[in-house]
Amino acid sequence: MTLEKLHGKIDKSWDRHLSETRRLLRMPSISMTGEGIEESAHAVGDMISKLGAEPKLFRGGKKSHPLVTGHLDVGAEKTALVYGMYDVMPVGDIGEWDHPPFGATIVRKKPYGEVLVNRGVANSKGALAGSLLAMRTMVENDEMPMNVHFLIEGEEELGGLSLPKYVLKNKEKLSKADAAFTFDYGENAEGVPVIAFGMKGCVYFDLEAEGTEQTGGPMEGEVHSSEAVWIHSPVWRLVHAISTMVDENQQPTIDGLWDDVLPPSPEDLELVKKLAKKFDPDAYRRDLGASKFKIEGSKEEMLKKYIFEPSVNIDGLLAGFTEDGTKTVLPPRAKAKIDIRIVPDMTIEKTRAKVMDHLKKRGFTDVKMRNYEDYPWSKVSPTADVSKACVEAMRYHGKEPEVWPMHAGSAPYYLFDQVLGVPWTCAGLGHGGRAHAPNEFAVVKGMKDFEKSVITVFWKYSEISSKHV
Amino acid sequence: MTLEKLHGKIDKSWDRHLSETRRLLRMPSISMTGEGIEESAHAVGDMISKLGAEPKLFRGGKKSHPLVTGHLDVGAEKTALVYGMYDVMPVGDIGEWDHPPFGATIVRKKPYGEVLVNRGVANSKGALAGSLLAMRTMVENDEMPMNVHFLIEGEEELGGLSLPKYVLKNKEKLSKADAAFTFDYGENAEGVPVIAFGMKGCVYFDLEAEGTEQTGGPMEGEVHSSEAVWIHSPVWRLVHAISTMVDENQQPTIDGLWDDVLPPSPEDLELVKKLAKKFDPDAYRRDLGASKFKIEGSKEEMLKKYIFEPSVNIDGLLAGFTEDGTKTVLPPRAKAKIDIRIVPDMTIEKTRAKVMDHLKKRGFTDVKMRNYEDYPWSKVSPTADVSKACVEAMRYHGKEPEVWPMHAGSAPYYLFDQVLGVPWTCAGLGHGGRAHAPNEFAVVKGMKDFEKSVITVFWKYSEISSKHV
Repeated sequence: MTLEKLHGKIDKSWDRHLSETRRLLRMPSISMTGEGIEESAHAVGDMISKLGAEPKLFRGGKKSHPLVTGHLDVGAEKTALVYGMYDVMPVGDIGEWDHPPFGATIVRKKPYGEVLVNRGVANSKGALAGSLLAMRTMVENDEMPMNVHFLIEGEEELGGLSLPKYVLKNKEKLSKADAAFTFDYGENAEGVPVIAFGMKGCVYFDLEAEGTEQTGGPMEGEVHSSEAVWIHSPVWRLVHAISTMVDENQQPTIDGLWDDVLPPSPEDLELVKKLAKKFDPDAYRRDLGASKFKIEGSKEEMLKKYIFEPSVNIDGLLAGFTEDGTKTVLPPRAKAKIDIRIVPDMTIEKTRAKVMDHLKKRGFTDVKMRNYEDYPWSKVSPTADVSKACVEAMRYHGKEPEVWPMHAGSAPYYLFDQVLGVPWTCAGLGHGGRAHAPNEFAVVKGMKDFEKSVITVFWKYSEISSKHV
Repeated sequence: MTLEKLHGKIDKSWDRHLSETRRLLRMPSISMTGEGIEESAHAVGDMISKLGAEPKLFRGGKKSHPLVTGHLDVGAEKTALVYGMYDVMPVGDIGEWDHPPFGATIVRKKPYGEVLVNRGVANSKGALAGSLLAMRTMVENDEMPMNVHFLIEGEEELGGLSLPKYVLKNKEKLSKADAAFTFDYGENAEGVPVIAFGMKGCVYFDLEAEGTEQTGGPMEGEVHSSEAVWIHSPVWRLVHAISTMVDENQQPTIDGLWDDVLPPSPEDLELVKKLAKKFDPDAYRRDLGASKFKIEGSKEEMLKKYIFEPSVNIDGLLAGFTEDGTKTVLPPRAKAKIDIRIVPDMTIEKTRAKVMDHLKKRGFTDVKMRNYEDYPWSKVSPTADVSKACVEAMRYHGKEPEVWPMHAGSAPYYLFDQVLGVPWTCAGLGHGGRAHAPNEFAVVKGMKDFEKSVITVFWKYSEISSKHV
């Protein structure tokens, strides 16, 4: 069968696929509250069993939501890991929705035509259902070119234990896979598929200062601010400590942080060059509600910094009395929530140690670090089979993709990349919007294109990788 | 009549006085919610009319609680301003009270003996009732040595307009007074009456940074923190701005702030010397829950700094995501709530201007100041008649007072001092505790001593001031 004919099968079964996708979307699966999680895990399991694989649920801890796993063996030479997520964000203010958040309503929306409105359709249950249905089409037509290990998690919006624990536990088996895929609606609002060959890592922590024996500050609750002449304030302490972490242009100044920052490779720079041609800085910063960039240079230089440099960001600050009015208090503690985006070859462990050494060297031994879950960076070469397959698949559909050597955001793809050593990619046609917000939507035509593109990626990968077996 | 005999009248009428005080205490008068404010204002008015003055209610604005005024003319040569307050703080968690907050319950409490438990008894309706009853005793016995303008406010816990507006409006009349008095339970837990001959001022403001055209930061809400490489963060901006305002020992470093700080006078230093002998630094810092002071030196040097130096304190910090967890966000704004305690001869206007100049000089023109109500400092000479009267009154009752040349806290006494030019004092026997907290109390024996001490202060003042008419 040709790829074109296989795509025709999607057209033929589209009504059934759309209705099956809507069935999954109508099922709530809110990881933050747990609503509908179990039912959804089983529904995903059912879809996997229809592919001919035996679904299993794995829980990383007592309170973990299940990871849906399964092994589809079609007797192919190559094996893929397919990662997906079935959990969604809470609905938020129901009054801001024009349609029921779990109604899977299809309406017209300019300039897209028909769109499907539902929590999770764009992020990412629409793509999850579509990719499983695309694989079913291949399996039913005996045209599935790869075996698959499924890793469909229900804790993506929370950051849970199930996925990393399972991956570590099954490292030997999973690391034998040839490629890892995440399929998602990858087109931007202009219909250009965006692909990233890497993700920055993210080290997240709170820095906390409080009254201690060392500094003398209040250790039994707040003190009247008239005592500030002679009683130590943990708030000033925290402000002084963190103020040393970036310079006046807000570039990281943590001692040694830049030592491990690799310059981009010639391939990376080639991609940046291409990207710069398409990149519209004004449109980009307008989308963010910013009036200008804080860094200067050519579009190429700016993108190079954006993509390959680390950042130190304050996500939140909290101390004392924060309302309007005039409570005069010397607070007993203060905290700053901080994330550091790390790039190759920075590591989580070294980054944390450098922050603490930096503070210690300046005498801030009373400032404590509280850790949260982190993501290492991940990266795949533009010349890897998965990368080429992905670009060629988009071109097959008549779309020249916009390729980013790294995405500035962070995702758990390091599990494939750094833990398992399996090159990964994230691709797909289709467009969705308003993820995490009311009236989350996906373009219906794009949902069909998406299924076809999943098939194309698998086929292109097999084609390319078979050339050098 | 001798002072001793007049005090005996208090003993004789004590049951009646206590019951009248309890009647006022049982009436809620919560300025924050307005509960019972009007009734209480009228009840205070009734007590003033029983002195032979015509009570009037003055409101500084539409939403203001009434200031109760009245002029008692006993045909004396000298006239006093008597300031008081009839409003109280909210009850808070009712479950934490062992007795009804407006029950005026009398119980035994170690080591004090009988205490009266009621919201506002210590701060300051107990003293208000007691001082009006002490004056009634003098009037009834034709022994009131001064005419009085009453200024009893119902907005002390809020900071309202009625008192300052009335004082400004009646400046000519009120500035002719010879002395201003605030009577309060002034004994500490050891039974030593504490007197302060001044109050620091307090300049209160928020410093706010947000995305602006100038800096480019987010102007339409938060931005994903992966954009931090090239999008300006108002949070870093604020942290850098405020970090320049104190040094690493948390001493103010605002340009020019120290220029107007007067060294203490020889009289002041004399008082500090005496104070230092009684001062127990360890007990003091233990009470605050602090393990040490951040300044060093002899007790005298420490007290000199504490009393006569300004402080810059962060009352609160707020930006972005402040809960536990890992929301990765570049917040569009950040604020720091700051109070600066000012000492002679600093002014509010100059202090504000110095902060803004300091920030401007360092390029922080995007950091905005949001003002709240301020208090200038106020001060009375230890050799003024009111000061001497107050010390001698305490000594008459066998108590050597602990005299502070300035109190580190702030109060609206500048209205008497700097606006009207009338020297003021705050004095009284009696002990109360747990102001603003559950189970607020006053020692019953002290409440009776307090009434006597009010009479003594009036008498001593008349005696001393008559010597140099």
